[in-house]
Amino acid sequence: MKLLEERIKADGVVKSDQVLKVDSFLNHQMDIGLFRQMARQWRHDFDGAPINKVLTIEASGIAIAAIVAEEFGVPVVFAKKSQSVNLDGTVYSTRITSFTHKREYDVIVSAKFLGPDDHVLIIDDFMANGCAMEGLVQICEAAGATVEGIGIAVEKGFQPGGDSLRAKGYRVDSLAIVESMDSETGEIAFRE
Amino acid sequence: MKLLEERIKADGVVKSDQVLKVDSFLNHQMDIGLFRQMARQWRHDFDGAPINKVLTIEASGIAIAAIVAEEFGVPVVFAKKSQSVNLDGTVYSTRITSFTHKREYDVIVSAKFLGPDDHVLIIDDFMANGCAMEGLVQICEAAGATVEGIGIAVEKGFQPGGDSLRAKGYRVDSLAIVESMDSETGEIAFRE
Repeated sequence: MKLLEERIKADGVVKSDQVLKVDSFLNHQMDIGLFRQMARQWRHDFDGAPINKVLTIEASGIAIAAIVAEEFGVPVVFAKKSQSVNLDGTVYSTRITSFTHKREYDVIVSAKFLGPDDHVLIIDDFMANGCAMEGLVQICEAAGATVEGIGIAVEKGFQPGGDSLRAKGYRVDSLAIVESMDSETGEIAFRE
Repeated sequence: MKLLEERIKADGVVKSDQVLKVDSFLNHQMDIGLFRQMARQWRHDFDGAPINKVLTIEASGIAIAAIVAEEFGVPVVFAKKSQSVNLDGTVYSTRITSFTHKREYDVIVSAKFLGPDDHVLIIDDFMANGCAMEGLVQICEAAGATVEGIGIAVEKGFQPGGDSLRAKGYRVDSLAIVESMDSETGEIAFRE
């Protein structure tokens, strides 16, 4: 998506050959007008898919997922990273490893909100190793839900998450795929 | 707000005289159409206030805040609950105690995204003791930003958070204030 690639070039900061900061518009301060354009792109790309639920994971995917859910006219569910005293009853859970936070944690979705009737579009802001997305796919499978696709704002194409999910047959629709970054020049190359 | 009160009566579950579950539409599965109506209510209530930023805290306030930000045409910033390797530079931070999670944690906002020019509408899904909101107010004060108001979806009026912030002069606009709940009958009484 040209608009997102241009925004990343304008406002993204290459911190190292591995780390791209987009916190001024994507995942700390958030430009909801941009998210609306992204949501419309996914709405166009998934036209005809019987999506009736959006699934994301706390925290930085939630705002994008909310706008996407409104664009599709369906509810959104976010997987929680820790057991809350208010989350009781049957849950689906899986353990994932975070690249950003360098730790493992359990993520949980209440069984009330995901089931065999659900056709799910999974949404997140970033994909690197894809562990979070693998976790959400596992939760969908445990619930008997159908994964219609995975929409990612920024995929790091030089890390294996996206291509690994594609190889497994999942439809991964990343709006910008960073192929390489140069922390000395600040240059960012996107996959065609 | 009648629409929200009716939804709480229809779909909220009184788990105890203290705990109200609204996870089917507000803070686990989320009804973005409802959030849009709530955002329009705040837009109406704060008409004329020079709001140029929405501030919330991860995780369950983010979706509501995103819709509110779009309604006001301003960016949204969410305070993060743990230091990420991607969050560097100067930050404003404060320590808060969670009623729901029964633990203390630090919340952080990058100094790049909050400053003396900002007129902030703070948004969250729930307020009980108000610790999270007190924390966000402290962060705004540390940044020299002006708090134009605090918009809460559901306030527990029998807990001190909302009235304590009002007594300090903050404009707290809660769309539904639960005055009392009866876990045996499931009855919920709202403040007029």
